[in-house]
Amino acid sequence: MSALPQVVQKLIEEFEKLPGVGPKSAARMAYHYLRASRESAERLSALILDVKNKVKSCEICYNFTENSPCSICSDPGRNQNLLMVVEEPLDVVAFDRVGIKEEGGFGGVFHVLGGVISPVNSVGPEDLRISELIKRIEGMQDCVEIIIATNPNLEGEATAMYIYEEIKNRVLERVKITRLARGLPTGADLEYADYTTLRRAIEGRTEL
Amino acid sequence: MSALPQVVQKLIEEFEKLPGVGPKSAARMAYHYLRASRESAERLSALILDVKNKVKSCEICYNFTENSPCSICSDPGRNQNLLMVVEEPLDVVAFDRVGIKEEGGFGGVFHVLGGVISPVNSVGPEDLRISELIKRIEGMQDCVEIIIATNPNLEGEATAMYIYEEIKNRVLERVKITRLARGLPTGADLEYADYTTLRRAIEGRTEL
Repeated sequence: MSALPQVVQKLIEEFEKLPGVGPKSAARMAYHYLRASRESAERLSALILDVKNKVKSCEICYNFTENSPCSICSDPGRNQNLLMVVEEPLDVVAFDRVGIKEEGGFGGVFHVLGGVISPVNSVGPEDLRISELIKRIEGMQDCVEIIIATNPNLEGEATAMYIYEEIKNRVLERVKITRLARGLPTGADLEYADYTTLRRAIEGRTEL
Repeated sequence: MSALPQVVQKLIEEFEKLPGVGPKSAARMAYHYLRASRESAERLSALILDVKNKVKSCEICYNFTENSPCSICSDPGRNQNLLMVVEEPLDVVAFDRVGIKEEGGFGGVFHVLGGVISPVNSVGPEDLRISELIKRIEGMQDCVEIIIATNPNLEGEATAMYIYEEIKNRVLERVKITRLARGLPTGADLEYADYTTLRRAIEGRTEL
């Protein structure tokens, strides 16, 4: 397209690689930086490199962090025997937003798998941090609860089952394994709820 | 949020400034770069600066370009007396995609206003390239056609009317001023079309 300077075209192509960004959004984003101040362009440019240079995996939970162990793993106020297994670092952010235990939220620590078992994308158990999880649980002294918080979809369920079996096989009697509650999300419209969600909502009904 | 490294938080905030990017998309974009290769991060980082350094305004049409005059203004195959007035550089890209005249598209040149008159955002006519447009038309020797192609919304219409009056006031008899056709977009659903669109579609009906 002759109307687009080549360097703008390249920037659009880079933005298009971002998750959830299509050609039109990418173009709008590129033009935003043409119009934005030089400072704001320099800031983004530097931050992208900064993130790559400063951020690493926490040696304990594999969450992204600037210092390892991360602030969650090194927080003495958290229950180190309550371990939530999640797929991605963004899931940690979501649960952390819920607040700590005193505020009625989650007061434990995390273990980031780094994905889900997915034969379609050729991701096997050995590509995830499952053996690290087992080793971590084996190293724990007290009774522990493992909350498997993979996503409530096909791949998440399969991964949860695999992890459950792995832990069970090691007959860790002091380990309690739980899953997140399934049911209707807050604000849901019953009319539009899918079959499985409705079934789970009935199965898991609670007394008032 | 303790779960987020500070530098990631900052990158998310930068991404949030992009048009159409909310907090969740921004977080997903930031995490994309944590996972992406160093090369791809370096590429985006460099391109953002490149765009700022290499791209300028075309001295004739004010479109973004690496070389001024831009490839459209310096194209001898284009009709320099057919001038389309648009709000933004992205509009040039959209019309350029339609193709050149031989392919049944637009074969003329452009004039980028750099926005619309908008009292709400305190943008007045003097903030746009309207005086430059008048000067450009005055400098043209032959009969010319000016297609005012601002967006079909309130501010676009007001800007179009203002430009129309400005050109008329200078009694340029050899200037023909046109607007883009209004009516139903291709693929539209009549049931969901708004009142104004339907009215325009009836008013502007064409014989089969």
